[in-house]
Amino acid sequence: MRVDNVSDPALKQTSEETLMAQYEHVRTQTLRLTESFSAEDMMLQSMPDASPAKWHLAHTTWFFETFLLQPHLAGYRSFDETYQYLFNSYYETVGERHPRPQRGLLSRPPLKEVLEYRSYVDNAMKQLLNSSGVDTNIEAAVTIGLHHEMQHQELLQTDIKHALSLNSYALRLDTNKAVTSVSSHAPQNPEFIPFKGGLSFIGTDAESSFAYDCEQPRHQVFIPEFSLCERLVTNAEWLEFMEDDGYKRPKLWLSDGWATAQQEGWQAPLYWYYQDNQWLTVTAQKREPLDLNAPVCHISYYEADAFARWKGCRLPTEFEWEHAAQSEELSGHFLESGNSLPQPVNNSARGLKQLFGDAWEWTQSPFIPYPGFTTPEGALAEYNGKFMANQWVLRGGSCATAEQQMRSTYRNFFYAHQRWQFTSLRLAK
Amino acid sequence: MRVDNVSDPALKQTSEETLMAQYEHVRTQTLRLTESFSAEDMMLQSMPDASPAKWHLAHTTWFFETFLLQPHLAGYRSFDETYQYLFNSYYETVGERHPRPQRGLLSRPPLKEVLEYRSYVDNAMKQLLNSSGVDTNIEAAVTIGLHHEMQHQELLQTDIKHALSLNSYALRLDTNKAVTSVSSHAPQNPEFIPFKGGLSFIGTDAESSFAYDCEQPRHQVFIPEFSLCERLVTNAEWLEFMEDDGYKRPKLWLSDGWATAQQEGWQAPLYWYYQDNQWLTVTAQKREPLDLNAPVCHISYYEADAFARWKGCRLPTEFEWEHAAQSEELSGHFLESGNSLPQPVNNSARGLKQLFGDAWEWTQSPFIPYPGFTTPEGALAEYNGKFMANQWVLRGGSCATAEQQMRSTYRNFFYAHQRWQFTSLRLAK
Amino acid sequence: MRVDNVSDPALKQTSEETLMAQYEHVRTQTLRLTESFSAEDMMLQSMPDASPAKWHLAHTTWFFETFLLQPHLAGYRSFDETYQYLFNSYYETVGERHPRPQRGLLSRPPLKEVLEYRSYVDNAMKQLLNSSGVDTNIEAAVTIGLHHEMQHQELLQTDIKHALSLNSYALRLDTNKAVTSVSSHAPQNPEFIPFKGGLSFIGTDAESSFAYDCEQPRHQVFIPEFSLCERLVTNAEWLEFMEDDGYKRPKLWLSDGWATAQQEGWQAPLYWYYQDNQWLTVTAQKREPLDLNAPVCHISYYEADAFARWKGCRLPTEFEWEHAAQSEELSGHFLESGNSLPQPVNNSARGLKQLFGDAWEWTQSPFIPYPGFTTPEGALAEYNGKFMANQWVLRGGSCATAEQQMRSTYRNFFYAHQRWQFTSLRLAK
Amino acid sequence: MRVDNVSDPALKQTSEETLMAQYEHVRTQTLRLTESFSAEDMMLQSMPDASPAKWHLAHTTWFFETFLLQPHLAGYRSFDETYQYLFNSYYETVGERHPRPQRGLLSRPPLKEVLEYRSYVDNAMKQLLNSSGVDTNIEAAVTIGLHHEMQHQELLQTDIKHALSLNSYALRLDTNKAVTSVSSHAPQNPEFIPFKGGLSFIGTDAESSFAYDCEQPRHQVFIPEFSLCERLVTNAEWLEFMEDDGYKRPKLWLSDGWATAQQEGWQAPLYWYYQDNQWLTVTAQKREPLDLNAPVCHISYYEADAFARWKGCRLPTEFEWEHAAQSEELSGHFLESGNSLPQPVNNSARGLKQLFGDAWEWTQSPFIPYPGFTTPEGALAEYNGKFMANQWVLRGGSCATAEQQMRSTYRNFFYAHQRWQFTSLRLAK
Repeated sequence: MRVDNVSDPALKQTSEETLMAQYEHVRTQTLRLTESFSAEDMMLQSMPDASPAKWHLAHTTWFFETFLLQPHLAGYRSFDETYQYLFNSYYETVGERHPRPQRGLLSRPPLKEVLEYRSYVDNAMKQLLNSSGVDTNIEAAVTIGLHHEMQHQELLQTDIKHALSLNSYALRLDTNKAVTSVSSHAPQNPEFIPFKGGLSFIGTDAESSFAYDCEQPRHQVFIPEFSLCERLVTNAEWLEFMEDDGYKRPKLWLSDGWATAQQEGWQAPLYWYYQDNQWLTVTAQKREPLDLNAPVCHISYYEADAFARWKGCRLPTEFEWEHAAQSEELSGHFLESGNSLPQPVNNSARGLKQLFGDAWEWTQSPFIPYPGFTTPEGALAEYNGKFMANQWVLRGGSCATAEQQMRSTYRNFFYAHQRWQFTSLRLAK
Repeated sequence: MRVDNVSDPALKQTSEETLMAQYEHVRTQTLRLTESFSAEDMMLQSMPDASPAKWHLAHTTWFFETFLLQPHLAGYRSFDETYQYLFNSYYETVGERHPRPQRGLLSRPPLKEVLEYRSYVDNAMKQLLNSSGVDTNIEAAVTIGLHHEMQHQELLQTDIKHALSLNSYALRLDTNKAVTSVSSHAPQNPEFIPFKGGLSFIGTDAESSFAYDCEQPRHQVFIPEFSLCERLVTNAEWLEFMEDDGYKRPKLWLSDGWATAQQEGWQAPLYWYYQDNQWLTVTAQKREPLDLNAPVCHISYYEADAFARWKGCRLPTEFEWEHAAQSEELSGHFLESGNSLPQPVNNSARGLKQLFGDAWEWTQSPFIPYPGFTTPEGALAEYNGKFMANQWVLRGGSCATAEQQMRSTYRNFFYAHQRWQFTSLRLAK
Repeated sequence: MRVDNVSDPALKQTSEETLMAQYEHVRTQTLRLTESFSAEDMMLQSMPDASPAKWHLAHTTWFFETFLLQPHLAGYRSFDETYQYLFNSYYETVGERHPRPQRGLLSRPPLKEVLEYRSYVDNAMKQLLNSSGVDTNIEAAVTIGLHHEMQHQELLQTDIKHALSLNSYALRLDTNKAVTSVSSHAPQNPEFIPFKGGLSFIGTDAESSFAYDCEQPRHQVFIPEFSLCERLVTNAEWLEFMEDDGYKRPKLWLSDGWATAQQEGWQAPLYWYYQDNQWLTVTAQKREPLDLNAPVCHISYYEADAFARWKGCRLPTEFEWEHAAQSEELSGHFLESGNSLPQPVNNSARGLKQLFGDAWEWTQSPFIPYPGFTTPEGALAEYNGKFMANQWVLRGGSCATAEQQMRSTYRNFFYAHQRWQFTSLRLAK
Repeated sequence: MRVDNVSDPALKQTSEETLMAQYEHVRTQTLRLTESFSAEDMMLQSMPDASPAKWHLAHTTWFFETFLLQPHLAGYRSFDETYQYLFNSYYETVGERHPRPQRGLLSRPPLKEVLEYRSYVDNAMKQLLNSSGVDTNIEAAVTIGLHHEMQHQELLQTDIKHALSLNSYALRLDTNKAVTSVSSHAPQNPEFIPFKGGLSFIGTDAESSFAYDCEQPRHQVFIPEFSLCERLVTNAEWLEFMEDDGYKRPKLWLSDGWATAQQEGWQAPLYWYYQDNQWLTVTAQKREPLDLNAPVCHISYYEADAFARWKGCRLPTEFEWEHAAQSEELSGHFLESGNSLPQPVNNSARGLKQLFGDAWEWTQSPFIPYPGFTTPEGALAEYNGKFMANQWVLRGGSCATAEQQMRSTYRNFFYAHQRWQFTSLRLAK
């Protein structure tokens, strides 16, 4: 997901005090996510899609400096002029940038200086938020900056996990965790929850709370009758797919998916390793036995689609998902729950489970504009729609998503081949 | 468009006599398209997306041999066993294939032998169609084979045009054609036709006439109010876009589109050449001055999208297009009209023009399954949905499309970067 | 080998009559080599290193038109102005060129027209050679043109062989040829012929006969004592290497060679196919059982080097080879012998065998300039030394080399990874 | 240069005490080279050719652990078993390795732990060297280990320089250094020193001092008369070449060189930047004005060759260079002189200057085996000759080379396109 798609939203009604509290909460949460990593870890960039943790720390700070402090805080002086070049992500109107695939070469500025940068900007932001000049435009921009930073919190986690997974030294096996065998954890037969369909309102006009522009405007969609599986697909079910030659039968796959799978040599989800007669997976800290009852994770759209076909089902559309989610409570295993992997479903609960948190759900809906979508003006809103091609919508959030970031209208999006996010699937019929 | 996506349609009610006449008509039309080309021309393959004309001649014939003659004509003996390997396109269940990017290396069998193959199969097909055993299954398969061949007729034309365009010797300037200057052909201000929207039926159940599976089933879609431009965008309008730096302003482009345009060095539509103070384009036979009043052609989805944004408009959805086309007469400049390029609009006509024929219209709809889409059984229907990712729907047909092939529910599809088909755009609001 | 490295040689003393006879001989021989191929075959280009046979026919003709007729035949009118662009190979001073990797797209001009071009130029050349104005400069240029054409004769054969080998239809198994089994053809233990070494004269000053500039000047080289194997390595010996895991042991290989072998998946020489319990190879006309007593052929420098190391030997230097060849008769299986593959050695002969003809011998000498090498002036001599990096010298000629082209000082050169020429090896100690 | 080509040399006669002193000297020198870099800097890997400084620190230590301590120190226990996998470079017999292009992903082990590893191994080495069991085999292996480490000292410097050069933040302009203008520093006309040539002994038998296997055996070469320029080519002369369109004239270049220069967009040596009307270059610490009197540096073989051709000269052979160097004193600006760039020549000196130190000199000699070259046995000597293809010999050492490492027979080697070493040229005739 490109994390800088921002809207010109109607403002969330908060006093400056509350906004200040939110600011401190989000900024502190970001730093907390880096506590277990060294300066060396935080330089890692393992692919152009990903960025170093240090870069995330600086870029989210650059956002407040560029869009809040420089235009709105009188007398503000930049921490370092060259940061403009180093930590811009893709705002063309803001100027030239350090090449994205070379962010891992930024040994300088050192982490220590980036942390000073954060403090420096945080102090100035407090000054700004305490000043008398805070109007709704400023409030809106701060709110966007916080949502922007929450998105980067998730990327920070998935990016460093990817990089560390390539270092066998870093992720040693956690032998304390008990081995999970397949036989003892046969998954139950999940239920499918039926929905009537009909004309449904999708999206939001964001009048009373924050939403990105791509979630807007609220509009009607006709949805035929459908049903959704009560829970996400589990690792145990995915093993059955593998054992039934799911990765070897072209007829189960989209043409582009089959080509990608052959080229990349996919034979299991990302981060699955077979060793000493068991399947292992990794967190950013260690290698551990796979929990067969947990949702499958780190799969591409192509794999999700092939699995659904193998099951005689399909993926839900984003409209079906949102329609179903509208009446559900927004709760689940988010970042705040402290889990580094999606958790097994609570079997005793009824109805739709795991809709929010745990893992993103691939939908069969391409990421395209809603009818009436318009691009906001200004640098902050630059290129709002420019990612609306060749990517697919994911819904619901994951264990790496901040809870405040989530809502039933939220549209995340990635390319069909990407696997390093916490991506899973729910079956539909 | 992948030309072998076929359905298990309800059959078109025709007597054997009629089917025979159709068979002869289509097969003859294919050969007619190759009349001006040599055996050497018909070997050309300029990119993996394209195939040699000789290969198209053989592959369409292989289709009848494999799916009609071998299973249904008692005592039929294959023309040459090795053709199975050479001329299969992508039917995995039918066996191994000659590598697609190396079709241009098939100097053998020679064209002469491929033409004998066509005669041989045509004779056998006549025998089959005259036999008493022709049932509705056979009729359905023949109908599919003919629609399949009509699709290859279009590809044959676009593929050889692409290859010849890379040989400066082949396409010399036609100096008989008068030079068209920009100033004398200023385009008129086109009208936008308004539509009310609402719930609309899209697609077909193909009960009384042929349709591919991807056009099925007929289903309801909610379409908001919209309006469509009365005609296609012209070359003159495209020149304005170019002169206004349309190819140089990233803010007009999708992110993937901008990256592609930079990498490929796009500065004009495919086949545009600037020489001696005028713009030229090519047909498969010659180089000639660009007709500024004709529809722009050979553009990618990315260019169409950027142009629409530049105009303050957007591309239509496939549902808007189909909704508008349902009440229009199916007529236009198709293959049978003998034009090698799309023609200028008839200004005296009223209402929507150029809906059918002339050039395919990019829509903003990704090619995904309709609700309730199902994959038919059997080899003929293999992989019906397997192209439903990362491609975009085009509507309406072109000057290289056989008229019988077209209908308002027809969904063509290509990747967003592809330009060698006769692709154009119509603005929507 | 790049075939246009030409020198400003002292002239071979021939009357115009003889030069005319040579001209006719060489030009006729070129056409004879194409007799068994169709116009379609002669368009094939299977890789950028290779060119279509039709292109070779035209390019060698273009050479005479450009360097003889245009400057020296009064009133000469070019056959077609555009040929200048199409059939120039790499003479930068002569102008722009059609892109080399797209020579296979030249369906036009048709073969028929290229043959007319040859006749047209041949007639004009006869006129020139019969005129009174033929001086030694012209004679020198004609001689170069003929040697140039002989080099293209060899490439024409190896290029079309490569292309046809990729078409399983083209090269069907020749079942008339008896199967050769390994056991019945165990190779004898070859003898090594000792040489004393010392200061030796290498190269030529080309005063009395034609030689390329890279063979000049004659100079002294100190050669330590050495010995050469009496014959080339055989296919039977190569099989032993394969059976002893020669392609699987990195310690036998150069580092670059091992990387190339892994990347390309080499497990045998080019054109070796294992089928029905026997090894087959191909000619340009058919697939046939491998003759185990024949020299191994179509191997890269890397493979030759690994084999020699496996045998506890090494490849000869080009100086050792030339030193040994100076006292040998220039005879062997050349193009004129009509063999499409190298032939088994004549066991009854004594001393060094197969030095000339049959197959080129990789030496361990990089292709670099001799001391005192100078670049001649003028377009014909353009870039004489520009290929003197990263390539290796081969010596002795092959079954596809015209006999008149060969001499003991002749230096052929290719990159270490290239295998499509008739390349073999002789062991040295 | 691959730094692990080692021989089975006759041993340098030293007491254990001396060897211990050498060991301490070399190991300390390595650490000194890293003093100005942070742990983050020492993780940088900017291309597969280069390695992180931390990796160099660990790999050179691994060498002593693997080839000295494990086989020879009774009771030695490895510091960490996984280091075997992480810090092996390319010794196939020693086992699997971490992928070379991903050495930059080794955030763990942290630098701190790698430094502990060095101490741990150093302590064990002292124990070994003080023990009574030190025989000549052990002494030989220690000597190799030290030469190996000196080679890595040079790579450590060039690798980190390359990585930091890609970070504009890291290398800010040093404004203290005065601007050097072209006009005020016109280079003198250098003299060419003549040599008679004849039979000369090249290489060494390494009986009394250390030498790599590729420098052996001593053998005779016939060298024609030649002359060498008294000094290296200067930056001022290189500017003349650039101003005379040296980078734009294909006729000056080798064919492979021209293709590389076009593809890479070369228009000046590596690390030359034009800014504010002056040319700058970089050290590993800063950006500073180019010293026009200093030797040109960071050029490829292709550029060196083109420059020489432009001057009407050529590069020397490695035999000419060694012949000339045999009678010269081994002194110059080496690593110990503390210069981060090659220094201007001392104009008052007579005869050949800058032969040793300052910058490596490309020769026109490919890196191939000397006559009689043999591969030593054992893992330490694994693959001694495996780099003898496609690379070129450089002679003389640079400002990043430890003085003890250099001698007149030393053969360094790199690919013709590589520029990140301290590479320069001396003209020959």
